[in-house]
Amino acid sequence: MSGTIISPIHDLLNDLHGRLQEERGGEVATYIPELGKADPEWFGVAVATLDGVLYEAGDTEVPFTIQSVSKPFVYALALQDRGMERVLQQVGVEPTGDAFNAVRLEPETGRPYNPMVNAGAIVTSSLVDGADAEARLDRILAGLSAFAGRPLAVDHKVLVSEAATGDRNRALAYLMHGAGSLRCDVDDSLTVYFAQCSTLVTTRDLAVMTATLAGGGVNPITGQQVVSVEAAAGALTVMATCGTYDYAGEWLMRAGLPAKSGVSGGLIAALPSQLGLGVFSPPLDPRGNSVRGVAACQELSGRFGLHLMRPTERPGPVFHRTLRGDTAHSSRVRCHDERAALTRAGRAIAVYEVRGDLAFNAAEEVVRTITADTESVRWVILDLLRAGRVQTVAATLLEAMAAKLGERGITMVVVDSEQGVPLPSAIVAATRDAALELCEDALLAAEDAARHSVSLHEQDLLRALDDDLVYALRDYLETRDYQPGERLVEDVAALAFILSGGLAREVVVGGRAVRETSMGPGTAVGRLALLDDTGHAHRIVAEGPTRCEVLTTANLTRLERENARLVDALRWSIARALAARLHRADAENHALMR
Amino acid sequence: MSGTIISPIHDLLNDLHGRLQEERGGEVATYIPELGKADPEWFGVAVATLDGVLYEAGDTEVPFTIQSVSKPFVYALALQDRGMERVLQQVGVEPTGDAFNAVRLEPETGRPYNPMVNAGAIVTSSLVDGADAEARLDRILAGLSAFAGRPLAVDHKVLVSEAATGDRNRALAYLMHGAGSLRCDVDDSLTVYFAQCSTLVTTRDLAVMTATLAGGGVNPITGQQVVSVEAAAGALTVMATCGTYDYAGEWLMRAGLPAKSGVSGGLIAALPSQLGLGVFSPPLDPRGNSVRGVAACQELSGRFGLHLMRPTERPGPVFHRTLRGDTAHSSRVRCHDERAALTRAGRAIAVYEVRGDLAFNAAEEVVRTITADTESVRWVILDLLRAGRVQTVAATLLEAMAAKLGERGITMVVVDSEQGVPLPSAIVAATRDAALELCEDALLAAEDAARHSVSLHEQDLLRALDDDLVYALRDYLETRDYQPGERLVEDVAALAFILSGGLAREVVVGGRAVRETSMGPGTAVGRLALLDDTGHAHRIVAEGPTRCEVLTTANLTRLERENARLVDALRWSIARALAARLHRADAENHALMR
Repeated sequence: MSGTIISPIHDLLNDLHGRLQEERGGEVATYIPELGKADPEWFGVAVATLDGVLYEAGDTEVPFTIQSVSKPFVYALALQDRGMERVLQQVGVEPTGDAFNAVRLEPETGRPYNPMVNAGAIVTSSLVDGADAEARLDRILAGLSAFAGRPLAVDHKVLVSEAATGDRNRALAYLMHGAGSLRCDVDDSLTVYFAQCSTLVTTRDLAVMTATLAGGGVNPITGQQVVSVEAAAGALTVMATCGTYDYAGEWLMRAGLPAKSGVSGGLIAALPSQLGLGVFSPPLDPRGNSVRGVAACQELSGRFGLHLMRPTERPGPVFHRTLRGDTAHSSRVRCHDERAALTRAGRAIAVYEVRGDLAFNAAEEVVRTITADTESVRWVILDLLRAGRVQTVAATLLEAMAAKLGERGITMVVVDSEQGVPLPSAIVAATRDAALELCEDALLAAEDAARHSVSLHEQDLLRALDDDLVYALRDYLETRDYQPGERLVEDVAALAFILSGGLAREVVVGGRAVRETSMGPGTAVGRLALLDDTGHAHRIVAEGPTRCEVLTTANLTRLERENARLVDALRWSIARALAARLHRADAENHALMR
Repeated sequence: MSGTIISPIHDLLNDLHGRLQEERGGEVATYIPELGKADPEWFGVAVATLDGVLYEAGDTEVPFTIQSVSKPFVYALALQDRGMERVLQQVGVEPTGDAFNAVRLEPETGRPYNPMVNAGAIVTSSLVDGADAEARLDRILAGLSAFAGRPLAVDHKVLVSEAATGDRNRALAYLMHGAGSLRCDVDDSLTVYFAQCSTLVTTRDLAVMTATLAGGGVNPITGQQVVSVEAAAGALTVMATCGTYDYAGEWLMRAGLPAKSGVSGGLIAALPSQLGLGVFSPPLDPRGNSVRGVAACQELSGRFGLHLMRPTERPGPVFHRTLRGDTAHSSRVRCHDERAALTRAGRAIAVYEVRGDLAFNAAEEVVRTITADTESVRWVILDLLRAGRVQTVAATLLEAMAAKLGERGITMVVVDSEQGVPLPSAIVAATRDAALELCEDALLAAEDAARHSVSLHEQDLLRALDDDLVYALRDYLETRDYQPGERLVEDVAALAFILSGGLAREVVVGGRAVRETSMGPGTAVGRLALLDDTGHAHRIVAEGPTRCEVLTTANLTRLERENARLVDALRWSIARALAARLHRADAENHALMR
């Protein structure tokens, strides 16, 4: 059995491709004679994810000239080079319901209506950086190549054919030059525009280029920020309103995705934040859109529920779980008194574990729920470890909440090890355990219930023992002081009662010590406590200046010989403590496994 | 300290409202004389969530006539009543770049270009169900009321004023009647249309109505499915392409939200799946859009990152954690041999815990990761408990994966207690613990490593004891058989060794027994095992026909008297078993807390 399986996404794409290959409608465009040589059977479909994974079916490596599909990309380059306000001065963004080659300019401004019709595209390509036509063409070719993630070149045969039959585009350019919206030389601008349209791409390129727009301008293969988030969004917006000429409105009704078609049979569609789709099939419908391309996009959109205006499924609850500090505890082993204080006052710690992505709706629910229930709460732990992406709006609302809670004397601790959500008004902890320990310590301090030192006879393991036994034990114990970071060597210390300070149990993972849990005054560790001879690589170190009463291995041997009743009583006490801890661990685990 | 805090969302909205109230630009419309009476200071902003929560600032209860903001809602009603294809025959969906009252019809079809200009809206309101004008008006008023979640009424003063000044609309209606696109009586259709525009709403109503569109036609307050998902999406789509007349393209560039404005100063904007926004402020800009409304929407969109075409933040990893069955175990207490088999062969169980929402991108990553690593895997547990919403596309891909895994002999178990994601090719478990136990049982069966019966001397607690002690213990044990569901009474059974069958520990929560964990042959329970006297409400019941060797309380007393060495050995063995289990529980807990 091999380790990998053909992806079901490939299967779905192949199935779609096989069915739509049978579609025989449409005509290959011939008004640019070179385009008429295209094989009507050519058909490629490619999907690129924002992680740079490609799913392809059919002729995805056949090169063809990009034609009008170049328009949104060059528009993005113009937005990048000049900024939106400057570009808007010369090219509008209003859909017109006109055909691609319409001769119509805004009456008041002389602007072409939008950058997706030829008139607007000609002005747009004159707006990219570059002192002259050659420099602008270089910029455009380099930009399109950056979108594709590989060097692209111009097909000179098509370019010549395009230039020879470009009368209408020439007329448009002269009209706009006359109206003042095209501000550079007409021949220069057409040279650049024709070359832009004659750039050779493959279906695979189209998918990657479109995923770059969908991903906020970041090429998913190369990782390059090709254009800014704003420029990419601008291009997607004009694709949404004007991408398929006089079919744009109906396209958005049916497919629900910003898209752009071209006369050579290319068609792109984007789902923002999600994917880029490229299709290539030369036969066109009467409006100039690829017949198989339109069918493929609409089927994928419908089948996969990609329509931008359709609500996604109703979300489940935004909280996976909410807990309070009287039942949920950190893994720190605390003495009886501290445990009792936490059980009594622990409801002042509220733990909220978020699930799913945090966009407006979910963040609103988080904020509303937490702020509605602050009665007696003094610490709020917001566990984002299992949350998905936290959007800007969510971060804004969470920060506003943290600030408001702070004004009311409530501390917000956010558990967030990866996303780095900017929450200056909150404390950040890497794990929920760390967050709980931090809040418990603060609560014990506030309640004046923290036990900084615990005498021998108050030690948890000895509380139930008769006084004479504890008295007898004294003779076998030695007081030891540990410096922060100093290791307690268990071969020597069979049992160590912590009087003050604290110890941490570290697990060594890949040569690095990871703090697993910790123990406070009143609790005990050591081989006799049975947790230390299970073969795991762990070690006990002092977390601050720490004083213990230690039963050394040598003294234990002597004790076993001299006072078997005391050893039995100790062991029994240890077993009962273990059982109680196991019961708590079981209950906690049980809750966590749900 | 009160239990609730003013929401930071209210604060943000109030702040926005306060600043924009100072904006003095724009003119109140006067072409319908009654509208000219509006107070230019009126300004309300309301946001409705899909859960039906309202955030409001300013004059959100001032009634005003809805005017053109009615158009997308009535369009949704027409789509609902007639279906998209039928409505498209009479009203196009192409944006035109024209003003709201343009006199222009599609040359070939005589259709108005889209339902957001007056011409298209007049035809649209003639398309809702109803045999005559009165019935259609009833349908529209009832429909608008359902969108608002309360009964709405017509302002007759405005209606009269509207009808008296509706020359241009009359002209439009006659033109369309002549062209065949308006197929009912001109006067009737105008009566309905004018009344529709004169319906009284508040800013609050607008927010709720828009949230209904954003939520796929479901009113967030009443829960009523007012129109279908398709009809709601259709209305949002025409809002996106044509909602603000000749400003539609630039609006979508800047605000990135489908919207609709009206001459009385209303403005709505929707974020699909997220929220509805209503603004009301009578002064209009030269294009007929509320000045404060446009400013409020654009600020909220920009500040909260709501632009539909901008990618949301890059997601974190799609898996919170991946585990294998050699390190992650169910809570079932298994005998030594079964534990050893799971440690040896457990890598055949792969556990994937998903975080965040599952749209295309995340589902693709899930499918790609799981299918790429099936070497030696025979069970895949996909834990969706902490996932957010699972979109259609994700469910489709997960089901396709489950089917493909099945073909390769790999069983997929999905942990999903709430969402009910349709995955017919997978087994569904309510908790990850249940999924793990199920897979472990299957693995042990496949490996021929399941211990269906374990003799006394092989019992975990007795393995380390000298043979003579085990032999001596026999005299104190009694064989007991339990029927499925029968309770083991611990007052009687101090210690029960499970020979065959199995026991479950149930916790009684709110009077209902919840299975907390279970124990198999070779393991033991009972008061002597120390886990049973911690005061928790739990009970032990047989899960199938179960045979135990029981040390009764009476016999324990006798044993303590007659063979103290045996009791000590038993206790010590129990303590060691507890310590080992605690260590495993600690490690598991530690992993889960991260």
